[in-house]
Amino acid sequence: MQTDNTPKLQDLRAALERDGAELARLLAEWHPADLAEHLQDLDEGEVEEVFTSLGGEARAEVLQYADDPLRQLAVAHLSAASLAEVIRELPADEVVDLLALVDGAVAEEALHRIDLQRSTSLRELLHYDPESAGGVMTTEFVTVPVDTRVGDAIKQLKVDADRADEDVGVYVVDDEQRPVGYVTDRDLLTHRIHAPLGEVMAEAFTIRAEADQEETAQIIHKYGLEALAVVNGAGVLVGVISSVDAAEVFEEEASEDIMRLVGTAPVHQTRLPVLTRVRHRIPLQAVTVAGGLVTARLLDYALPAEPGSSVALLRYLPIIIGLAGNVGIQSSTILVRAFATGEVEEDRERAVFVSEVMTGLVIGVLCGLLTIPAAAWMEGSAAVPAWQFGTSIGVAIMVAVTWASLLGCTVPLGCKHLGIDPAVVAGPFLICLSDVSGAAIFIVVARIMGQALTAGAGVP
Amino acid sequence: MQTDNTPKLQDLRAALERDGAELARLLAEWHPADLAEHLQDLDEGEVEEVFTSLGGEARAEVLQYADDPLRQLAVAHLSAASLAEVIRELPADEVVDLLALVDGAVAEEALHRIDLQRSTSLRELLHYDPESAGGVMTTEFVTVPVDTRVGDAIKQLKVDADRADEDVGVYVVDDEQRPVGYVTDRDLLTHRIHAPLGEVMAEAFTIRAEADQEETAQIIHKYGLEALAVVNGAGVLVGVISSVDAAEVFEEEASEDIMRLVGTAPVHQTRLPVLTRVRHRIPLQAVTVAGGLVTARLLDYALPAEPGSSVALLRYLPIIIGLAGNVGIQSSTILVRAFATGEVEEDRERAVFVSEVMTGLVIGVLCGLLTIPAAAWMEGSAAVPAWQFGTSIGVAIMVAVTWASLLGCTVPLGCKHLGIDPAVVAGPFLICLSDVSGAAIFIVVARIMGQALTAGAGVP
Repeated sequence: MQTDNTPKLQDLRAALERDGAELARLLAEWHPADLAEHLQDLDEGEVEEVFTSLGGEARAEVLQYADDPLRQLAVAHLSAASLAEVIRELPADEVVDLLALVDGAVAEEALHRIDLQRSTSLRELLHYDPESAGGVMTTEFVTVPVDTRVGDAIKQLKVDADRADEDVGVYVVDDEQRPVGYVTDRDLLTHRIHAPLGEVMAEAFTIRAEADQEETAQIIHKYGLEALAVVNGAGVLVGVISSVDAAEVFEEEASEDIMRLVGTAPVHQTRLPVLTRVRHRIPLQAVTVAGGLVTARLLDYALPAEPGSSVALLRYLPIIIGLAGNVGIQSSTILVRAFATGEVEEDRERAVFVSEVMTGLVIGVLCGLLTIPAAAWMEGSAAVPAWQFGTSIGVAIMVAVTWASLLGCTVPLGCKHLGIDPAVVAGPFLICLSDVSGAAIFIVVARIMGQALTAGAGVP
Repeated sequence: MQTDNTPKLQDLRAALERDGAELARLLAEWHPADLAEHLQDLDEGEVEEVFTSLGGEARAEVLQYADDPLRQLAVAHLSAASLAEVIRELPADEVVDLLALVDGAVAEEALHRIDLQRSTSLRELLHYDPESAGGVMTTEFVTVPVDTRVGDAIKQLKVDADRADEDVGVYVVDDEQRPVGYVTDRDLLTHRIHAPLGEVMAEAFTIRAEADQEETAQIIHKYGLEALAVVNGAGVLVGVISSVDAAEVFEEEASEDIMRLVGTAPVHQTRLPVLTRVRHRIPLQAVTVAGGLVTARLLDYALPAEPGSSVALLRYLPIIIGLAGNVGIQSSTILVRAFATGEVEEDRERAVFVSEVMTGLVIGVLCGLLTIPAAAWMEGSAAVPAWQFGTSIGVAIMVAVTWASLLGCTVPLGCKHLGIDPAVVAGPFLICLSDVSGAAIFIVVARIMGQALTAGAGVP
């Protein structure tokens, strides 16, 4: 498959509008990963329609490639019977992730419908903290005693082929099921079939099941491991984590760190409704408004001035610059990461741009409304009516924040189209631009709103 | 190997201080990944001593786990003969990365000393842009014609075992060497030896050699591939990228994005000398000072006031809050990422803390010194001598920036020890705290430095 020519969202939409045969033809042609990607942009009804058209095996494949929000939509409409069918096809660690999204009673019924041995081991996996080594490990792999020969290990692998994770080789265990060595598929292929595994195996790296998933991924990365054995308190092998799982943990944690540092939620922001994005980001802005009001109060105490004077006005500059800076950095960070992870392809750029700027506008209006009474109260009643003063500040915030979000979207998009790395420019350039323009907007708005504002200042 | 008990830096230092036998014993015991990690904290002479004590094979192993700065130190002292020995042991993609760090003449001489066929293929790899698919691919893997049977593919793999990348299976090619399918090691193990590969193989995903490495990693991640075939313009297979390579690209790009967004260089900041860190971060601060001065000028024009008055003073608040915010966010981001990637273990926390705060201090002093003449010039000569005014602003910057860097280090470290995710708290909490305390410091310093400053303001 040539990867520079992937299917387009509009084809899927077109197929949905025509008859079922057209949709079935398209679903049979598309790679499940492409389908999982584009399904994220459809609404609940359309997702349900697609999942109904898919067979059990294809459903499982699409779910394996899907992120949590899509999984949630998709499994909401599945019967226990269909869910059981999906569970049979998916590897154990994926099943555990999936069952966390399903109503408890449906999950229970689905587990009843599958093989008892497998449902028992799945139930055991469900007990682990999802962020721990136990929560990301799989229990489906091959173990053999230490005196096994290469040829017999291969036979064992053939027997267990259906259920054994392809990313993990064979673990050699002692009589107490403690891991003593690890053999890769390549080792099995390149050694004599009569060689005892004890001569072929490498040291088995182990970690406790309660260890944090991030620590687990760090170890796999540091030692360049293909697989890491997970053990319980007695050192008994209870599961295994592959390098593929570790890479996923790493990417998840990196995106989480970035998003949290700029004060937003670690999910695919560009796919969320505007109001959900606002909800994710408003705590940081509220903290900034609170900090800004404390600063204004502090300045009022230290540099007392007439209400409505230039000094009184300038006390609110930190709030405006702070809010504008936050929103600008949030928008640009979200876009930079979305470009890096392939979340925003060219056909979604316009939609993402519009929704991000809308998000900025809503945040700006909310913060402005929050500040108006606070500023009015802090100024008390005075020469210039306090509410007019508060409103000037509030409106300036609304304009400056919306503008910052516009900048925060335009700069990374522009960089991308000019072939410049958006991350290099987005940070420093944006901070400077949004500070200067925030101050300019503040002055202009305050001037227009309160003509008398400068009258009380210390003009010579 | 139980991974919760890894070797300590102090043991390596102790061994270096004793005799050579002690060092040799330790080097034989340690995993090369642990050695590569702790060597990063030693100086050039010590690194040379360790590398001299290592045999050729062990040297190659340590280099394979090492990051670029350590590789640079380590290879600087290697003769062409020793380098050739290392090249023989390393996979092709690692050799290419390594040769980029070596003096051209030495690299050329080392390439002359190895097998002609291999050096030719290495030279070809060196032509690709390091950030492209061609730059990260390897040329060392097994290809077989489409009519090959499973048993014969296994034989071929046994022959090429030494040189074939373990992370990549077997590519099936047509008469023109275009990839038509891919077979994993697991496929070879679980199918009949008489099965033709055409029946066993999966579709081969391909990408052009000029494609960006980030795009390449995205495709491998999206489709969950074990390997991606790299082709030239004619569709001929020229190399392959494994999922392991892709994970490395992803981690590199994520760290790069984060570091660049906060205006610093994408390398292990906590291992760098203070002055190098300052050099990486000063461009963003210079931009912030420039933006802040423009803002001050704008405010001066819009809200004219007596030189040295409260209004004149408040014009500089954006610079101070901006600088303090930047430095705080840089410190906290660096620490949060260093915790996440395992760069800062417990035994380095104190050293990292001290050096980060020192970095903040130096940046603060530089920015303060930069602002003094600018602020003095902008105020002109007036009631309060302009230089005294400028100095107040400059000193306030120095104190506020150092304080912000102290906060930016203390908060993530404190969170880590309290078991809170540092990323959640570091962003919002720090921004608020550094804004408020920046303003407070500004006022206190300005008051102390220029007693007369408030005299000119519009106090009732």
